[in-house]
Amino acid sequence: MNSFKIALAQFSPHIGNLESNAAKMLQQANAAKEQNADIIVFPELSTVGYPAEDLLLRPSLNKRTQQAFEQLASIKDIVLVFGFVNQTEDGQRYNSAAVMKNGQVLGIYNKQNLPNYSVFDEKRYFSEGHQHLVFEYLGHKFGVLICEDVWALPTVQQLAQLNVETALVLNASPYEVGKPQHRIETMAALTKQLNINLVYCNQVGGQDDLVFDGTSFVMNNSGEVALQAPSFVEDLYIAEYDAEQKAFKTGAITPVLNTMAEIYQSLVIATRDYVQRSGFPGVILGLSGGIDSALTLAIAADAIGADKVQAVMMPYTYTAQISVEDAAEQAKNMGVTFGIAEINPIVNGFMQTLFPFFGDAPTDATEENLQARSRGTLLMALSNKFGNLVLSTGNKSELSVGYCTLYGDMVGGFAVLKDVYKTIVFELAKYRNSISETPVIPERVITRPPSAELRPDQKDQDSLPEYEVLDAILYAYIEEDMSQDDIIAKGFDAEVVKKVIRLVDLNEYKRRQGAIGPRISSRAFSRERRYPIVNGWKPGI
Amino acid sequence: MNSFKIALAQFSPHIGNLESNAAKMLQQANAAKEQNADIIVFPELSTVGYPAEDLLLRPSLNKRTQQAFEQLASIKDIVLVFGFVNQTEDGQRYNSAAVMKNGQVLGIYNKQNLPNYSVFDEKRYFSEGHQHLVFEYLGHKFGVLICEDVWALPTVQQLAQLNVETALVLNASPYEVGKPQHRIETMAALTKQLNINLVYCNQVGGQDDLVFDGTSFVMNNSGEVALQAPSFVEDLYIAEYDAEQKAFKTGAITPVLNTMAEIYQSLVIATRDYVQRSGFPGVILGLSGGIDSALTLAIAADAIGADKVQAVMMPYTYTAQISVEDAAEQAKNMGVTFGIAEINPIVNGFMQTLFPFFGDAPTDATEENLQARSRGTLLMALSNKFGNLVLSTGNKSELSVGYCTLYGDMVGGFAVLKDVYKTIVFELAKYRNSISETPVIPERVITRPPSAELRPDQKDQDSLPEYEVLDAILYAYIEEDMSQDDIIAKGFDAEVVKKVIRLVDLNEYKRRQGAIGPRISSRAFSRERRYPIVNGWKPGI
Repeated sequence: MNSFKIALAQFSPHIGNLESNAAKMLQQANAAKEQNADIIVFPELSTVGYPAEDLLLRPSLNKRTQQAFEQLASIKDIVLVFGFVNQTEDGQRYNSAAVMKNGQVLGIYNKQNLPNYSVFDEKRYFSEGHQHLVFEYLGHKFGVLICEDVWALPTVQQLAQLNVETALVLNASPYEVGKPQHRIETMAALTKQLNINLVYCNQVGGQDDLVFDGTSFVMNNSGEVALQAPSFVEDLYIAEYDAEQKAFKTGAITPVLNTMAEIYQSLVIATRDYVQRSGFPGVILGLSGGIDSALTLAIAADAIGADKVQAVMMPYTYTAQISVEDAAEQAKNMGVTFGIAEINPIVNGFMQTLFPFFGDAPTDATEENLQARSRGTLLMALSNKFGNLVLSTGNKSELSVGYCTLYGDMVGGFAVLKDVYKTIVFELAKYRNSISETPVIPERVITRPPSAELRPDQKDQDSLPEYEVLDAILYAYIEEDMSQDDIIAKGFDAEVVKKVIRLVDLNEYKRRQGAIGPRISSRAFSRERRYPIVNGWKPGI
Repeated sequence: MNSFKIALAQFSPHIGNLESNAAKMLQQANAAKEQNADIIVFPELSTVGYPAEDLLLRPSLNKRTQQAFEQLASIKDIVLVFGFVNQTEDGQRYNSAAVMKNGQVLGIYNKQNLPNYSVFDEKRYFSEGHQHLVFEYLGHKFGVLICEDVWALPTVQQLAQLNVETALVLNASPYEVGKPQHRIETMAALTKQLNINLVYCNQVGGQDDLVFDGTSFVMNNSGEVALQAPSFVEDLYIAEYDAEQKAFKTGAITPVLNTMAEIYQSLVIATRDYVQRSGFPGVILGLSGGIDSALTLAIAADAIGADKVQAVMMPYTYTAQISVEDAAEQAKNMGVTFGIAEINPIVNGFMQTLFPFFGDAPTDATEENLQARSRGTLLMALSNKFGNLVLSTGNKSELSVGYCTLYGDMVGGFAVLKDVYKTIVFELAKYRNSISETPVIPERVITRPPSAELRPDQKDQDSLPEYEVLDAILYAYIEEDMSQDDIIAKGFDAEVVKKVIRLVDLNEYKRRQGAIGPRISSRAFSRERRYPIVNGWKPGI
């Protein structure tokens, strides 16, 4: 029995780029060797990244995977445990882990539990494995599990019954609010119950709408955490097993973040990875003087640096002077590029062309949408001309009820606050102000009653219930799948509930054409809440 | 042994509206009784419709299903075989068929083969059944199968081994080019091989991006078709079993359509069902004088009637006079509302506001996009003001390579030609002209070289290869999943292939924000080709 060191590569893959992923894995393995690690564990499907979606169906995946194996085979004297797609000769495809040493594959494990719910579609791609992988190394008995496996009690029980001392768990477990802590608590109960140590290595980074927090950890069979990596950081972490104590030594333990810090950082990493991996030199957004764009701007600047962020204020007749002032002040606070582009000539152009069609039809939301679409098109023109990505600034409350203009304020490649309810937007703005010496978001932006400023003296609350009420109804309907009747029974005004639910149902078409944005909840639109657009479901029971 | 009659309800459900579906099923059952049918067969999941997606996860589905059963229980003296979601007490959910007579459920069958590939996600919702359902009625032995089951040879073999004479197959089999004929040919081989009759009842109608063609049929165990329903028509069809001949009598057989008629009708029904079931009074589209909008206009008028269609020509400096003439001529030919809206004042407004930002930056695609977005916003304003749905007119070739403007010509709720390559657009236009006495699409629209008319003397072929070449490369890459190297090896110019593939990969973000549109291929974008936006996959092998 020996003491030994295990490295956890909290790794951020570039989806589909097996060559660069393998090169980076090799670097991490070399770094681990320098720290005398005996074993290095990578996340689930580390060679291709998670989720690679239908790239997994491309015929050359197998050949590319073999090339990645050849790249990884060059490193000696450290055991690599990494994720890959295992296409077997009988035509099956598995979500697998390889144990490799000195270029030799010593064992392969095929994931047994394939999630096919929520954001997961693994049964579209993979067959289920039916066998455990157990190996002895340095006098210690290891088993291998992949992500969902460790949440399936019978699977872990079987492994424990094989007298495995330590399970190496390769993960691509997406972030949602509170998930880092939830994982650790669940696994603490499991390790104690089954008397097994866990080395839990999780992917980190943003991939389209998914955010992976990392928060990898090593846990002893007492349920005690021996090592806990920070969330949202790509790095290598080393745990040391003490053969005498029969336990991992207590090393660096980074506590999980508080809720607002956790959400904020998830949005920062999601934005950074989307922008940088799509190859944009920077971002541009419309800064309205309101809180959504203010928070989006702060996140963008924190993600990629203020020098790469351009903010544009696009006033019209109904824009309050304080909106212009607040926008300018925030841009100055943050040191981003700022410009003002009046939309009056554009709106006038539209009205001139539309006059013969509209005649004396009464003014309605059409004219409001024209303002929003003039702004959206302006942002796109600036994006087209200078190459910056447009960030969309709408929040989940607005998107839920369609209080936003398709092709207007919804334009953009990435919607930073897409899964963030308005009440949380306020909390995040306050949180962001609390972590700098001087607040970056002007106080007035946070305290003013929200307004789209699309008609004189407009307030959001003219058309919508108070955000506390709206968000509570939305949460019950969307996150909790409650029925209209049950939500009314909780004490909300029946007419308000009916209106909100009708709006959520009606606006599926709008959401379907919106930009992707980072998922932070357990019921994000699109990938996780797949509703038909043509839909005759009647609210009620 | 008796002779008997079976009704096939080629049914078009309203997704999620169990109450109205059950009411319509009851009507059809009554109509079948009037024609002395002993049994009526409905499509897969007929009570809730297919695919109901995450509506299937709503907690009250079970209660709604029970209510539908109660509605259906009122009819006497005819056996109903219909599809429903079977939620069992142990918490499982099945895709099931019920056999009901006089309000009594005589048997339940749970689908055994759950497709989870292509456009299907059934493992997200359902557990697999493991038992056959066989029943005797009128001296005849029946079995029940659901859709994918009949494509799984072992499943049908087992049923045949139970001495079943006739399998009742409930289907929601989506249309793709040639699929109606393919089904019949495959089933002819199967029935002969296994000596079993098939009563194949398929859903009909459009549901978001899926089109169901119906084309239900009855086939004897000789492989001969005894009855074949027309494609794309909702109706009731009656087959008669002759106990003496031990075969279904040859009844009405509607041959499948030729390819262009089949595609055309699929687009018509998809458009009609989307527009009507979304509750729009009519549609509006931009008519450019080009072939895509010309064909879209013809489909729209055929789908919902010319009186509900509004066409708008939106000329700018680069619009040829013949484009305006051709647009006007077609609108007149078809009898749709037609208007002209010059976009010059709008583009000028944008350029005025953008001047301080653009300075002397050279003209590029930005200015072209401004024209397209001015048009898109105009259409949306007319839609907002008068309530018509905007139809998007882009084709699959353009969408593949991103030769279209997001928030510009891509605006709209339904993209009629989304899955139709440009070369097929030409064929469809000719087909449509061939079926009216006088051509509805002016000849010049078909013969002119395609142009976006966004700069002087622009032709599509300035930026893209000839459409014959482009579509062949796209088909190989998208439909056939061929690699760049393999496509080049077929003899295409290497640089052209590389450019096309790069454009397809780059433009995933654009497609993701595009409108849904009817699927007619075996590899439609989005539901069937799920690619990540951030994607490091390198073309080549």
